[in-house]
Amino acid sequence: MSKVRVHNFFVSLDGYSAGETITLDEPIGKAARLFSKYDGRVIHGVDAVDEPITLDRALTSMWGQGIGVEIMGRGKFGPQTGAWGDDEWRGWWGDAPPFRTPVVVLTHHPRDPIHFDNGTSFHFLDAGPEDALAHARSLADGGDVRLGGGPSVVRQFLKADLVDFMHLVTVPVVLGVGGSLWDDELTEIQDRFTVESATSPSGLTHHFWNRTARSRRPGAHGQRPGTA
Amino acid sequence: MSKVRVHNFFVSLDGYSAGETITLDEPIGKAARLFSKYDGRVIHGVDAVDEPITLDRALTSMWGQGIGVEIMGRGKFGPQTGAWGDDEWRGWWGDAPPFRTPVVVLTHHPRDPIHFDNGTSFHFLDAGPEDALAHARSLADGGDVRLGGGPSVVRQFLKADLVDFMHLVTVPVVLGVGGSLWDDELTEIQDRFTVESATSPSGLTHHFWNRTARSRRPGAHGQRPGTA
Repeated sequence: MSKVRVHNFFVSLDGYSAGETITLDEPIGKAARLFSKYDGRVIHGVDAVDEPITLDRALTSMWGQGIGVEIMGRGKFGPQTGAWGDDEWRGWWGDAPPFRTPVVVLTHHPRDPIHFDNGTSFHFLDAGPEDALAHARSLADGGDVRLGGGPSVVRQFLKADLVDFMHLVTVPVVLGVGGSLWDDELTEIQDRFTVESATSPSGLTHHFWNRTARSRRPGAHGQRPGTA
Repeated sequence: MSKVRVHNFFVSLDGYSAGETITLDEPIGKAARLFSKYDGRVIHGVDAVDEPITLDRALTSMWGQGIGVEIMGRGKFGPQTGAWGDDEWRGWWGDAPPFRTPVVVLTHHPRDPIHFDNGTSFHFLDAGPEDALAHARSLADGGDVRLGGGPSVVRQFLKADLVDFMHLVTVPVVLGVGGSLWDDELTEIQDRFTVESATSPSGLTHHFWNRTARSRRPGAHGQRPGTA
């Protein structure tokens, strides 16, 4: 079974990973500071940029390895909320979104898929984590599934025990406000994972979470009563 | 210009990276201990193995990113020395060598190329570093060049100032004897590089060498008098 992976999930010292409010001018809200001390991710491979290959860049380069599909929340796709006013919004990324695979956008307001020449396509789906994952896998051509965030999407999948791997990155900045991955219900999640951490010379700390045990609670993936 | 990169170059606490003698039974001589405390490289991507994605595995997964060709010494290709007794030896790796690109094998005894179905091919060349690199680039289809070792090959290219990046890994074991990357002539090499190091929870220390300055000595790449 293909893995469900989270990559390059940046977290501030006070635990926030996204801004509270997303606007056209501030696509990740006030969380931009998370990236201001960092010199760039190389999501398509360390050879893709003409810059030194640092430890941080090397680790962010896992992002695309063997990935066949991404699942993201609507807030990552665009700043709109509610029903779509028109269909002209095609995401933040212009004519060549960086994904290069199908992307499932979770929204209560489905619309027609959007296709780009570089292999990226957006598929809008109103579904919970299990169904969204099944649909994503049907688009993945056997590849792994990347959970692209935001924090609330990752949290939903963690609660459903559907996450196999997370690469979290602690950034030594303080945001003060924002969206957090964690809540009270998630405190026991850490017991399902083996966690390995290392600090890079830049000051970022990289955390590798690998799932070692599955949850036994009803509703967890593959153990839902009555589900084949 | 494509980069010349060294990846996953393991070094013992006493500075050795290869065994003194290579035999059929001991392809890397007594240096096997370098790998005995380490749980495996994932050279074709973190998705390629059904194992936890550790920091070490993540870093070794850079090995193939954007690589179009490898250059290796004859000792890495086989244990034979001198003239080829027959042409039956096709490398250590069976019918599917892991390289999946052309490989230039440096030897004073050229022979016909060998091709495999998985994209690997071996090309035997009697040449110094500059000419070997030019030939390798002609086979690389625009990709980067990986220097595959052994230590003496990497040393030759360092002396010719042809190396852009090295990922060295200090392994906390002692070999006692072996082949070393370094010699007296190479002590000033470090001044050409920015070096970044981080220790992983496994005990391996990863060193990232990125070239920041080119040598000015005659004979260095691109500055050879009389070379266009």
